[in-house]
Amino acid sequence: MVLSDIIENLNLDTDINSTTVTVEGLNTLADANEYEISFLENEKYIKDLENTKAVAVFLKKEFVHLLPKNTIALTTNEPYLKLAYASKLFAPNSVEITGNKPTIGNNSNIMNNVHLGKNVKIGDNCIIMSGAYISDNVNIGSNTLIHPNSVVYRDCKIGDNCIIHSGTVIGSDGFGFAHTKEGKHVKIYQNGNVIIENDVEIGSNSSVDRAVFGTTLIKEGTKIDNLVQIAHNCVIGEYSILTAQVGVAGSTTLGRNVVMGGQSAIAGHLDIAPFTTIAGRGGVSKSISQSGKTWAGFPLLEHRTWLKLQGKIAKLLK
Amino acid sequence: MVLSDIIENLNLDTDINSTTVTVEGLNTLADANEYEISFLENEKYIKDLENTKAVAVFLKKEFVHLLPKNTIALTTNEPYLKLAYASKLFAPNSVEITGNKPTIGNNSNIMNNVHLGKNVKIGDNCIIMSGAYISDNVNIGSNTLIHPNSVVYRDCKIGDNCIIHSGTVIGSDGFGFAHTKEGKHVKIYQNGNVIIENDVEIGSNSSVDRAVFGTTLIKEGTKIDNLVQIAHNCVIGEYSILTAQVGVAGSTTLGRNVVMGGQSAIAGHLDIAPFTTIAGRGGVSKSISQSGKTWAGFPLLEHRTWLKLQGKIAKLLK
Amino acid sequence: MVLSDIIENLNLDTDINSTTVTVEGLNTLADANEYEISFLENEKYIKDLENTKAVAVFLKKEFVHLLPKNTIALTTNEPYLKLAYASKLFAPNSVEITGNKPTIGNNSNIMNNVHLGKNVKIGDNCIIMSGAYISDNVNIGSNTLIHPNSVVYRDCKIGDNCIIHSGTVIGSDGFGFAHTKEGKHVKIYQNGNVIIENDVEIGSNSSVDRAVFGTTLIKEGTKIDNLVQIAHNCVIGEYSILTAQVGVAGSTTLGRNVVMGGQSAIAGHLDIAPFTTIAGRGGVSKSISQSGKTWAGFPLLEHRTWLKLQGKIAKLLK
Repeated sequence: MVLSDIIENLNLDTDINSTTVTVEGLNTLADANEYEISFLENEKYIKDLENTKAVAVFLKKEFVHLLPKNTIALTTNEPYLKLAYASKLFAPNSVEITGNKPTIGNNSNIMNNVHLGKNVKIGDNCIIMSGAYISDNVNIGSNTLIHPNSVVYRDCKIGDNCIIHSGTVIGSDGFGFAHTKEGKHVKIYQNGNVIIENDVEIGSNSSVDRAVFGTTLIKEGTKIDNLVQIAHNCVIGEYSILTAQVGVAGSTTLGRNVVMGGQSAIAGHLDIAPFTTIAGRGGVSKSISQSGKTWAGFPLLEHRTWLKLQGKIAKLLK
Repeated sequence: MVLSDIIENLNLDTDINSTTVTVEGLNTLADANEYEISFLENEKYIKDLENTKAVAVFLKKEFVHLLPKNTIALTTNEPYLKLAYASKLFAPNSVEITGNKPTIGNNSNIMNNVHLGKNVKIGDNCIIMSGAYISDNVNIGSNTLIHPNSVVYRDCKIGDNCIIHSGTVIGSDGFGFAHTKEGKHVKIYQNGNVIIENDVEIGSNSSVDRAVFGTTLIKEGTKIDNLVQIAHNCVIGEYSILTAQVGVAGSTTLGRNVVMGGQSAIAGHLDIAPFTTIAGRGGVSKSISQSGKTWAGFPLLEHRTWLKLQGKIAKLLK
Repeated sequence: MVLSDIIENLNLDTDINSTTVTVEGLNTLADANEYEISFLENEKYIKDLENTKAVAVFLKKEFVHLLPKNTIALTTNEPYLKLAYASKLFAPNSVEITGNKPTIGNNSNIMNNVHLGKNVKIGDNCIIMSGAYISDNVNIGSNTLIHPNSVVYRDCKIGDNCIIHSGTVIGSDGFGFAHTKEGKHVKIYQNGNVIIENDVEIGSNSSVDRAVFGTTLIKEGTKIDNLVQIAHNCVIGEYSILTAQVGVAGSTTLGRNVVMGGQSAIAGHLDIAPFTTIAGRGGVSKSISQSGKTWAGFPLLEHRTWLKLQGKIAKLLK
């Protein structure tokens, strides 16, 4: 696609001659490459303007002077909404019509009623059980077991020695919308993917959403229980343990060996230090920078402080 | 069915000659039409007796005099239990044997391994992906995308421009039981449906239960995330946002543009004013009548009061 | 398998001549029979050593003298980790290649796209709807309805008059791992099953995990709503009611007629007295021995005490 197609499609008011500017996708200011468009909505990211490699940026007029010299300014009063409209232009098809037949390694068992999309690659010694849906461009390593009726959306990758239980969905759309002045919601197409590294197990009826741009990442050796929600663009560190009904909101990063008790949750855009333990029902709304500590409650307290609080509450009741 | 069939089936003790009274279903006192039977169990609804159009009502002897003159009293000490037994008589088949072949609009893609039941209608430009189960009498509008392995139970309707992600179930039975004196539970067959209006998106592994009578309604433009529970007879207002792991209990009505944060929940039989925001983990146990406010915590407080409470708790800990 | 195979496979350092000792599986000290190996990791179970019938036990050297005379000591500094490695040796195949064709009773309707594994038995008047996966050795009683796209893993049993809604998974692996010194997790293969007794209904997108050894048991007449998590080795008593998004952690036992409100949860290894009611969001972290009481909050309080606490908190805010 060339930039002028996007300008025309979005009815942007600009004189830029951009029929020769190639655009391949969208991304954040920090991660965009020279073929990607970015945006500035939240002023928290102003500092990312000066170093962005994006070919063009949706932003308000007042910030244009902060852009690098060669970056094209796409001025608008609604940068995020424009991004939403643009995201649709880059959304891949739900189902590819053309592409290669699946490649399947030695000794793998693809049961009946399994859907394998175009360009799918499956390693050796895998079992893909009935009713599983493995969408286009999905890459699955060796010795991996996919239980019945689980779904892997297009473009996702699953490593070696993984187990995905029934009803689990890998790569459904992240929950991202821009909002119009009238209070309507405009879908931001989730054009990223999910990568699950080696030795990961995910229980039944869990959901791991695909990234809006880039990748939602589950690192090596992590174990996830049933009915767990991993939102778009999360990074779950190596050897973490997420028990049942846990929720992790978007763009949150967990270090290695984080343990989350049942029904605990972490808000979006946070960083959680390695070796952190969150007790059952714990609700994390701020980043945790010190590693190795145990936390509980909502709002979150260090576990020993939480116990002290329960003591105070008991006194209150006497 | 005629009323005498029901009387016989339930072993009701009555002299009424009712072989000519047609009954087509069950409903609440307020909503029943002249071919429906209703019931009075909870005395909160006594006021609905005098205006009911129901052809007959299960109720205790002491309330019979409050019925309109032409309404037939089905006296019993266990009205709700009798309703449960009667509900089974009106339950449709799980699978229809006869009916019309599906009608499919132009340019719609029904993938392999999709089940389409009898009398199904699908509009133009839809994609119904593999493993989806679209049951009898389901009506799907145009430009709607149903992801793999999702399920739409019989009699439900989905509008135009909707997206339903994998593993989501539309129209499973609401959770309704009458209880015997011995503590056993008797199923109230859920003979209603679900209607999803236009421009609605529902994430993966969510459940929207069918109504016991009438309709569970998701209004236009609402966006629902993963692992969300919408119980029977809820009405979710236009352009609402329900994030992951939210739960809304039965018969609760949300106004338009209600926003619910992750893992928040609302109890049953409540009304929530338009433009209400419930913070993550908020638990709503009373109706909210003032629109446009933000709430948090459980029990629920206005968000600023909740912040004040956290300050007090911090002091308590010093 | 004979004990020497296990010793060799796990590289255990022992002189025992065990080529004639038959081992059929693994179990707890209390439940193991004379063909099963057990383990002692948590010292809370030391008292079970003296009466164990296990043929051999993984345990630390210091506890060997507490074993019955004929029990073989498999000394190790990491008993639980050794159990994990051993569990893999007894894990059945994900898919059986040989075995009998399914046996199906009179008047049962097995729809298209249903997978029935080896040795499956289905009673009379059942409906197994499209996309359901009924794995090897599963036994389903009569008059049971399995909705589309639900999954029953191998070796599980479902009684008469049951209803399992769409997307629900019966028998996925319990969440059990031993941990290496390096913080890696080693799967404990979940070689038990799930038994669901008669007259049980389970809503959509719920998960009931199989036992690590023995059985996860849902007793007669219990009703379970949507998105509910039942972990491995739980026993849910007769006529219990578990509403939406409830979680019950591993090895917890509920008495009969326990009622759990929405999003409530119970921690693992607890006993809950019959006729207990847990209000919505209640979080149970200790056993409840007195039957018939109502509880709320987290940490849990008797409901009336919890109400009192809310009064105190309201005062605090003035």
